[in-house]
Amino acid sequence: ASMNGQLQDWGDMAQMRLSEISACSLPGEGVTRLPFTDEHRQANKIIAGWMQTAGMDITLDAAGTLVGRRQTGGKRGTKTFILGSHQDSVRNGGRYDGIMGVVLACLAVEKAFADGSEPDFAIEVHAYADEEGVRFPTALLGPRALAGSAEIAVLDLADENGITLRSALDAFGGDASAVPELARQPEGIIGYLEAHIEQGPVLENEDMPVGVVTSICGIERNRITINGKTGHAGTVPMRGRRDALVVASQIISELTARAEALDELRATFGTLALSPGAVNQIPETVILSLEIRSPSDADRQAFSNMARSFVEATATASDCSAEMEQNYRQPAQGCNAGYIDKLQNACRVHQGRSRLLASGATHDASAMAALCPMAMLFVRCRGGVSHVPEEYASAADMGVAIGVMAQFLNSL
Amino acid sequence: ASMNGQLQDWGDMAQMRLSEISACSLPGEGVTRLPFTDEHRQANKIIAGWMQTAGMDITLDAAGTLVGRRQTGGKRGTKTFILGSHQDSVRNGGRYDGIMGVVLACLAVEKAFADGSEPDFAIEVHAYADEEGVRFPTALLGPRALAGSAEIAVLDLADENGITLRSALDAFGGDASAVPELARQPEGIIGYLEAHIEQGPVLENEDMPVGVVTSICGIERNRITINGKTGHAGTVPMRGRRDALVVASQIISELTARAEALDELRATFGTLALSPGAVNQIPETVILSLEIRSPSDADRQAFSNMARSFVEATATASDCSAEMEQNYRQPAQGCNAGYIDKLQNACRVHQGRSRLLASGATHDASAMAALCPMAMLFVRCRGGVSHVPEEYASAADMGVAIGVMAQFLNSL
Repeated sequence: ASMNGQLQDWGDMAQMRLSEISACSLPGEGVTRLPFTDEHRQANKIIAGWMQTAGMDITLDAAGTLVGRRQTGGKRGTKTFILGSHQDSVRNGGRYDGIMGVVLACLAVEKAFADGSEPDFAIEVHAYADEEGVRFPTALLGPRALAGSAEIAVLDLADENGITLRSALDAFGGDASAVPELARQPEGIIGYLEAHIEQGPVLENEDMPVGVVTSICGIERNRITINGKTGHAGTVPMRGRRDALVVASQIISELTARAEALDELRATFGTLALSPGAVNQIPETVILSLEIRSPSDADRQAFSNMARSFVEATATASDCSAEMEQNYRQPAQGCNAGYIDKLQNACRVHQGRSRLLASGATHDASAMAALCPMAMLFVRCRGGVSHVPEEYASAADMGVAIGVMAQFLNSL
Repeated sequence: ASMNGQLQDWGDMAQMRLSEISACSLPGEGVTRLPFTDEHRQANKIIAGWMQTAGMDITLDAAGTLVGRRQTGGKRGTKTFILGSHQDSVRNGGRYDGIMGVVLACLAVEKAFADGSEPDFAIEVHAYADEEGVRFPTALLGPRALAGSAEIAVLDLADENGITLRSALDAFGGDASAVPELARQPEGIIGYLEAHIEQGPVLENEDMPVGVVTSICGIERNRITINGKTGHAGTVPMRGRRDALVVASQIISELTARAEALDELRATFGTLALSPGAVNQIPETVILSLEIRSPSDADRQAFSNMARSFVEATATASDCSAEMEQNYRQPAQGCNAGYIDKLQNACRVHQGRSRLLASGATHDASAMAALCPMAMLFVRCRGGVSHVPEEYASAADMGVAIGVMAQFLNSL
């Protein structure tokens, strides 16, 4: 009870800080904080204060990442452990997605030292500028720069006002030309930890404050095109129709049912367009999207192969034709097994039990995985919702997260 | 062989006439002949010539219908039998839909008298101005006026240039104010016969030139709205999703399968719109149309009731909600049983066998059914297609139709 009471205090502090920084937003419902804007600048001032309270020195790196660093001595003194997340939000988003990870990182470092930690490595907290990719048609520049995987061409992409990422970054105090120099030497980085709201209902359903991420799902996106034959809805008999929408429906129903039968795989048909699109005309063509996510690339690939065969066979059975083209792919990123163990141990201490779950969404950790071992901790969010003003995590749950993260740091 | 050779001559004449009148069209692919236009005026001149060749006197009635009348003596001399169809086409349509019925009617009358017919009633051939409803958002003014079911309010509807039906009709030589006076006394009309291309594949599949229509299907149109819950395609597990598109797919697949198992009923989902409509977001709302057609109003109503229950139950099973609202209904019109018998007898004479089929589409006969007993004869069309430049019926098939129609007239 005493420990829980203490964690509640840390959680209350997190909630207060999130409330304060939520004011760094464009007017309107919820939070709108885009990268390299006045709101970002105001937010960084506040974050710098949190970092200083945790004993850190502050710099803004060339990619616009606010870096707090607490240098410590010892035999591994040249190595660094990084905690991080992003400061930006979607338009009219909530006050937790992204920025909560920065708040919890600062408080976890503060608590770890308050608990008597004497690490023989440096600790950094990073507040990345842009993970949501709302302002520019790219994202993750900060962590990609650290991992040496940033593509320089993206610096020439422009926002809706024609301002390039390069000029926005430079005007903000970064240095686009120096982004390639940000790449860290892998041997100097111990690892990376990120806390994030779950953005799903699993922890709420399990009545559990935090959960340990096993991996960040791989993603592939496919475009399915079905070609049938139109005709008059009154004069063409049912049997013998080549109705592209009926074929699409069979595909959506069956592939969804098969995905439900699998663990952790997600298959979503998010868009569907048909032609000619009249109440009395048989649909001739349907184009729909199929996004597949899985923590296992092999499982995703197997589902994708099965789906392609099923799509073609279902179309053929109705004398239609269909093709499924992959137009995006991103492999899964596994979390470090040792870190998962340490986080699970800490979860058992602070919430009595532990729950493993995959991340269906991409995070800054996806990019950091190219540099070093990484881990993620998910915090329960109300209703499983994110990217909306109603987004909410409780002070009590955030307190547990701080306790778990501080213990994790002390266990390194 | 001699009779068939003779019918081939009649069919060749029909094909020649259709070729000639297809020039009465706006420029562009296929035929575009809209009502109360220069093209309509040119067409009427040609049609008047066909009517005169069949021994008829010509008038243009107040609703713009070109009427040819062959007065005959005898004890039932005050009564009239009508054959008709429409002169107009859709935009970039073919040279058969509608106008073929006028051509065959004129030639059937000509042939009936050439065969020695001496009817004791008058015969009229009608070329209605507008069945397709392309220029004005209404159709069937001509036959509805005869049946006394024309709504005067439609005269104030305008085309895309702001010209009202009333002014277009008056400028063409009709008389909008006199339309109500066109209503015929039912006791003066014996019946109505219309020939039309099938617009479907049944006769082609049966390798048969013509078929006898049992009834014109009733139609109802419904709007189905499914409400689920959106969410991130990566973070929301498959089980527990409330995906409106998955529900829609189950509805489309199952109701289509049930319609296929029924005779003569047609169920078509012709439009589908979803929101939010992003590749990585679960569909929250789907709106789709369900059109149901059947020669039996009771069958259609039963299917509709079943569909409504199925829609609601399917939505509920996925924790979604759905409603199905009927926004259009038109009852079925049965063809006269005695006329069906006479047409079947004539079919057996001219093509060795007979086939009954329902009309899935609406025709001028739908309106004439309110005035008198009616019948329809369908002519095989290549590929079952209509409303496109590729629309085609052979001279041989049209010859059979003329033979059947002439024999039908002689059997009255």
